[in-house]
Amino acid sequence: MVPEACHNGGMSFAPLRNDSFLRACLRQATDHTPIWLMRQAGRYLPEYRDTRARAGSFMGLATNTDYATEVTLQPLDRYALDAAILFSDILTVPDAMGLGLSFALGEGPKFEKVVRDEAAVKALEVPDMDKLRYVFDAVTSIRKALQGRVPLIGFSGSPWTLACYMVEGGGSDDYRLVKALMYSRPDLMHRILQVNADAVAAYLNEQIRAGAQAVMIFDSWGGVLADGCFQEFSLAYTRRVLSQLVRTHEGVTIPSIVFTKGGGLWLEEMADLDCEVLGVDWTVNLGQARARVGSSKALQGNLDPNVLFAPPAQVHAEAVKLLDSFGTPHQGPGMGPTHIFNLGHGISQHTPPEHVQALVEAVHGHSRKMRSMPGA
Amino acid sequence: MVPEACHNGGMSFAPLRNDSFLRACLRQATDHTPIWLMRQAGRYLPEYRDTRARAGSFMGLATNTDYATEVTLQPLDRYALDAAILFSDILTVPDAMGLGLSFALGEGPKFEKVVRDEAAVKALEVPDMDKLRYVFDAVTSIRKALQGRVPLIGFSGSPWTLACYMVEGGGSDDYRLVKALMYSRPDLMHRILQVNADAVAAYLNEQIRAGAQAVMIFDSWGGVLADGCFQEFSLAYTRRVLSQLVRTHEGVTIPSIVFTKGGGLWLEEMADLDCEVLGVDWTVNLGQARARVGSSKALQGNLDPNVLFAPPAQVHAEAVKLLDSFGTPHQGPGMGPTHIFNLGHGISQHTPPEHVQALVEAVHGHSRKMRSMPGA
Repeated sequence: MVPEACHNGGMSFAPLRNDSFLRACLRQATDHTPIWLMRQAGRYLPEYRDTRARAGSFMGLATNTDYATEVTLQPLDRYALDAAILFSDILTVPDAMGLGLSFALGEGPKFEKVVRDEAAVKALEVPDMDKLRYVFDAVTSIRKALQGRVPLIGFSGSPWTLACYMVEGGGSDDYRLVKALMYSRPDLMHRILQVNADAVAAYLNEQIRAGAQAVMIFDSWGGVLADGCFQEFSLAYTRRVLSQLVRTHEGVTIPSIVFTKGGGLWLEEMADLDCEVLGVDWTVNLGQARARVGSSKALQGNLDPNVLFAPPAQVHAEAVKLLDSFGTPHQGPGMGPTHIFNLGHGISQHTPPEHVQALVEAVHGHSRKMRSMPGA
Repeated sequence: MVPEACHNGGMSFAPLRNDSFLRACLRQATDHTPIWLMRQAGRYLPEYRDTRARAGSFMGLATNTDYATEVTLQPLDRYALDAAILFSDILTVPDAMGLGLSFALGEGPKFEKVVRDEAAVKALEVPDMDKLRYVFDAVTSIRKALQGRVPLIGFSGSPWTLACYMVEGGGSDDYRLVKALMYSRPDLMHRILQVNADAVAAYLNEQIRAGAQAVMIFDSWGGVLADGCFQEFSLAYTRRVLSQLVRTHEGVTIPSIVFTKGGGLWLEEMADLDCEVLGVDWTVNLGQARARVGSSKALQGNLDPNVLFAPPAQVHAEAVKLLDSFGTPHQGPGMGPTHIFNLGHGISQHTPPEHVQALVEAVHGHSRKMRSMPGA
């Protein structure tokens, strides 16, 4: 346990009591494999659905500091998770650019305005960070409410992932519009991505200043790109974000995590990113990924969220299989390969909450056992 | 050109005039890189839309020999494609199992009955191939109508891909139901996949007897599986299909192609399959795939279909880039690495038909040039 004196604009945060997640990010030894879950504060929890009903809408929830704090802490009250993640959405930045984000009930995100022609691209600018004040306020409020239980992760969508939504106007099956623009007018696509990268960097830095102890870049749609295009239109702009990030805050290292869903083929190239952790989805074999990435990164992932629909005994067995596929993580002083347990994608809203309990217990129990095994 | 004497149930087929596709499947030299496109007979062609309107429905089109023949030949009348593919659907086999396939206009496939419990799984059987007679009749009719212009490819969905639709009842975003069954009751999933594999093998063998000169297994949803599950629930059953396939018909080799969309991470394991060609999607670098797969397979793919939304000059440039990434294919006698140009997924219904013209010309033109370059 590393005692930590944290200050923020004159406010003190409580010292951190469980630093296993941050240690694993930095490839330091931990007595168990830390676990958190993408979208761990979400619709599968009845208490979340209650808060959301009171808030009226998803954006009503995300923009209200008290609600955002409440739902961020809900999964921590149920499960022994090792990190909290800011409750927000990956699309807050283009919303602040004036594109008008909304969520109809039971549907994905929609933008009122889309960015499909030269005029719309030229009009894009890094938004005034004051428009995102509600996010930074939530970060500070959550960090205080956590009282040092676990560290708080901030996040943003990647420049490419934001561009997908900004051009398509919402989700897409085939990414036809954004790719048509990319293949037809790469100059316009590069301009969108530059603005996005600079905006994402400013946004994450403000989250760090507000109290985020690690940041994650969700490249949710990097994996839909062709080889060659991924490097040019996604990876290069993730790199541009990372190059502008604050690396320490008040003397403490702020680890960054990059997760490209469907990016398993490009792990060698991602290993070269200036970040601490690479997230991988369930198509990736963790042992092979460890061998391919080498010693410069921690790995985060990668259980198929659908495992959580199986009975607890199978959930346990699959968690054990996954921990074993990574192998024994680093122990002792110095740095070495470490694993942060997570899903390979956000948890499904249909997940039975008691199965999450089985998962967290399996990960903590088996990972402790692995460390005490002869030869470990 | 290999003259070929073909007979089918007493009928003679005309000798093949363009055998570049079959030669490339068998890793023999060709004077250009052959090209065909997944879903080349389809909605992007106005003549297809006319025929479909006359047929009344997708299944009305697929089950009528004359219509199926007509639409299969339509793209060949427009473009210098090097192969024809049977016009049909990957879901004919579960339809013949009694699940009741339908296509609402503008929507994906739907099954009337789903396979989600023990009773439904136990009731599954390899269907009587007579129920699929309309497919075999179409194969023979198309083969005759082709008059030896190019070879005819038959196809089926993979056992796993069929299982996805049979359990989900249609398309899915998250494969929740089929994966819940797989993780909870692997015994039931294995039984579904055994029946599917035996049915697919019987189905492809009947297509070969009816006149198909190559067969392709579309593992469209293999890529949604976790590492480990892919090998156990998809690859093993593709292998089971291949082990039962007719390898020659009337003295001529019938090449088989396996395409797992999203399967790029598992290419080394797929290289071990007893088939002639591996299809790859656009996330895969063809040069790296060639190095990873080794000399035992031809590669098919892998242009992002969205490239076809760019103007013809960019379509040309992307085709050249892709051919160059594979490198110069085998020339001279014996066998060596070969490439069959295709998309990495079916062509979009929104594709401008004149862009396909640009693609075919670019592939033929540049691949001829590559073969005449010094050092090639």
